[in-house]
Amino acid sequence: MTRFVHPATEDITLSGVLSALADPNRLKIVQGLIGQKEVMNCAAAAPCPDMAKSTLSNHFRVLREAGLIRTTKKGVEHQNTVREADLNARFPGLLKTILKHVDG
Amino acid sequence: MTRFVHPATEDITLSGVLSALADPNRLKIVQGLIGQKEVMNCAAAAPCPDMAKSTLSNHFRVLREAGLIRTTKKGVEHQNTVREADLNARFPGLLKTILKHVDG
Repeated sequence: MTRFVHPATEDITLSGVLSALADPNRLKIVQGLIGQKEVMNCAAAAPCPDMAKSTLSNHFRVLREAGLIRTTKKGVEHQNTVREADLNARFPGLLKTILKHVDG
Repeated sequence: MTRFVHPATEDITLSGVLSALADPNRLKIVQGLIGQKEVMNCAAAAPCPDMAKSTLSNHFRVLREAGLIRTTKKGVEHQNTVREADLNARFPGLLKTILKHVDG
């Protein structure tokens, strides 16, 4: 069984969040996820359609381990949501301010 | 002669800024510099007194190349200031929001 590592809200660190978001593709993934009302599987949340599955999977892992997203397994799909409430509890306003500055 | 690399304001990138600040020591350096009215030399802006000079120097280089600080040479000293106006022009509110969440 796949186990996903999700840090507790109080264990989310500022440098971890900044590091995870310091990559244009990961920023786009988070921006894409946050704009959706539904949870998204990894392929749907890809920043570009031709990204290798392993690269995409690694980006999701980094985001998950930094506390930015929550991944759950539904059948064969991994579904992802941004931990907006947890992030706002830990660092009010941070995610919103960062995402405001993402181009396009 | 030492030449310092300072990106133009329009060349400062979001991922570059986040990456440079994704290190607790560099966050402390920027926080320390911004709290000062005077420019500071590298030693005075060190996040901890026992940090190796080469490590400190590397942190300053990363911050400088990401567009976070400006370094000038005065005699044998390197003096540093945070490029607050440039950063606010490029990414309004970003630096302030990030620094608000630095512990201690």
